[in-house]
Amino acid sequence: MAKPFGELDLIRRIRESAKSAPQPKSRSLLLGIGDDCAILRPPRGHDLLVTTDFSLEGRHFRRDLHPAQSVGHRALARGLSDLAAMGASPLAAFLSLALPAELPATRAGRAWITGFLAGFQALARACSVPLAGGDTSEAPSSHVLADIILLGSAPRDRALRRSAGRPGDILYVTGRLGGSAAELAGLSSNSVRSRHRSGPADPNRSPHLYPQPRLAVGQALLRRRLATAAIDLSDGLSTDLAHLCQESSVGAEISEVSLPIHPLAAFGEDPVSQALNGGEDYELLFAARPSTKIPHTIAGVAITRIGTLTGGQKIHITDARGRRRPLRPAGWEHFSR
Amino acid sequence: MAKPFGELDLIRRIRESAKSAPQPKSRSLLLGIGDDCAILRPPRGHDLLVTTDFSLEGRHFRRDLHPAQSVGHRALARGLSDLAAMGASPLAAFLSLALPAELPATRAGRAWITGFLAGFQALARACSVPLAGGDTSEAPSSHVLADIILLGSAPRDRALRRSAGRPGDILYVTGRLGGSAAELAGLSSNSVRSRHRSGPADPNRSPHLYPQPRLAVGQALLRRRLATAAIDLSDGLSTDLAHLCQESSVGAEISEVSLPIHPLAAFGEDPVSQALNGGEDYELLFAARPSTKIPHTIAGVAITRIGTLTGGQKIHITDARGRRRPLRPAGWEHFSR
Repeated sequence: MAKPFGELDLIRRIRESAKSAPQPKSRSLLLGIGDDCAILRPPRGHDLLVTTDFSLEGRHFRRDLHPAQSVGHRALARGLSDLAAMGASPLAAFLSLALPAELPATRAGRAWITGFLAGFQALARACSVPLAGGDTSEAPSSHVLADIILLGSAPRDRALRRSAGRPGDILYVTGRLGGSAAELAGLSSNSVRSRHRSGPADPNRSPHLYPQPRLAVGQALLRRRLATAAIDLSDGLSTDLAHLCQESSVGAEISEVSLPIHPLAAFGEDPVSQALNGGEDYELLFAARPSTKIPHTIAGVAITRIGTLTGGQKIHITDARGRRRPLRPAGWEHFSR
Repeated sequence: MAKPFGELDLIRRIRESAKSAPQPKSRSLLLGIGDDCAILRPPRGHDLLVTTDFSLEGRHFRRDLHPAQSVGHRALARGLSDLAAMGASPLAAFLSLALPAELPATRAGRAWITGFLAGFQALARACSVPLAGGDTSEAPSSHVLADIILLGSAPRDRALRRSAGRPGDILYVTGRLGGSAAELAGLSSNSVRSRHRSGPADPNRSPHLYPQPRLAVGQALLRRRLATAAIDLSDGLSTDLAHLCQESSVGAEISEVSLPIHPLAAFGEDPVSQALNGGEDYELLFAARPSTKIPHTIAGVAITRIGTLTGGQKIHITDARGRRRPLRPAGWEHFSR
């Protein structure tokens, strides 16, 4: 007989997942789960930053491909990466979670829920962000639906914006690109999938399943006044660079050979395309004045110069043979692919 | 030929809906839609309040029953009502919206999107809350999926909580109860549905389609220090009273004849049940010390005394003939009905 599993049970389970290991301490969170609203008090002299990100089964993940822990991790990582891009420190996370009715009714389904919450909470603890509230519901279809809300803070008027890039600025990226797309391509093949099932992936070697939001890098860029503008690479470099250029009213020139290709992509079919358009690397793209000295690593993460911002509105890329071509946004866009 | 309709088109349409009439001015919103995060600066000396609420087709609304404007209105009203329950003033709203691929592909579908955004923005303007960001996606099924995030502020340490009720406190509700359930029952019958389609409903007479969040009442309760504890009636009085009692570690005695029955429910099949368990009235339930004088109306809304908080943990209701029975939570709970 299926155990009845109501909204209150799910809320209880989420609360328990928060208690199973000590929740990150937060002087900013005055009241968490349990009332009509959570209550926060952002640090004095700081602005508040807010981002929301869907994680919808069938769009952002597949239950037959992504382990439950990875789905929870990735959902939270999406929001944390948005905070990282603006140089913010996380204050609190909110999780709206809708589950298909059949999920809580089976042992495997309940294990999935436990795994999802464990993956979510592990990253939350690693990044010191408490789960402060959210909503729960039965899903109207057989898809798991999550929406993640992240609140963060940054010193007044100092948050890094997409819109503050200027012609002549040098463009940099953190880490390596294309790893997420390459790992996903591998996961989609049966052989890798069965290998993957044999044990948990190593988070440090799993850019797709366990991306690491670049919070420390973003915070250092802000604190040390290194960057003029920044954006996170969620949709893919070609698309996110276009966003940054559009918001800053500039163009860009980048170089193919300078792109830091992820080892997982390097020996694949089209490394450059995966680096430009693969998406979900959750690295940072930022611009800096030519006079600003940018270290080779920040917070232990490699920084690579990939091009410059220009006065025109166009974006070009030069390949290994010196051929220059327009770079079209070909990363992730919903509805159109 | 279906016009391609990408994520950027949807964001553009949302931005346009915000511009079609002037957005509410907000000194707290420094940066809205367009970057990785929105940037806010809550008023000095205030705490920040946050709530998230799903509005999922098939769970919270039906596209064949609810006009698009109503769906947009109700989605925002859910979050505003949470702020009202804590006496907060809204600062900004965030909308995560996932649409089935077929919706933007048809004229009727595009009209639905326009209607949804119009209903959302009309209430946003009426309550002076700017739309500051969110997320968009294609939905993985044929269901429209929305998650609404509301940020508000309240003077430091003054937000009304569920947990501060004490034995001996008098219980009050705002407005009238059961109207939403009664109107929904009427809408579900074909005759009323076709009547409804003949023209837009009058928001003031349509407690189900166009509930009015009690922001001004909640703010007055806080400002004038009238209430010890408060909650909004989203799930139904029987369930929400149980929440308040549980969080305050008290019991309650309420009286059936004192319940302010909505005119739409009064002549229906079971007015008392609709008032107790119907849910979605979005009125406020609050407790006040016996020595506190509570006006008959606050901000133009009727206030009705319905019972008292008690020292035990149990909740009882007395009927018109003086018979006393336990009141079990029988309002809305996901998964279990």
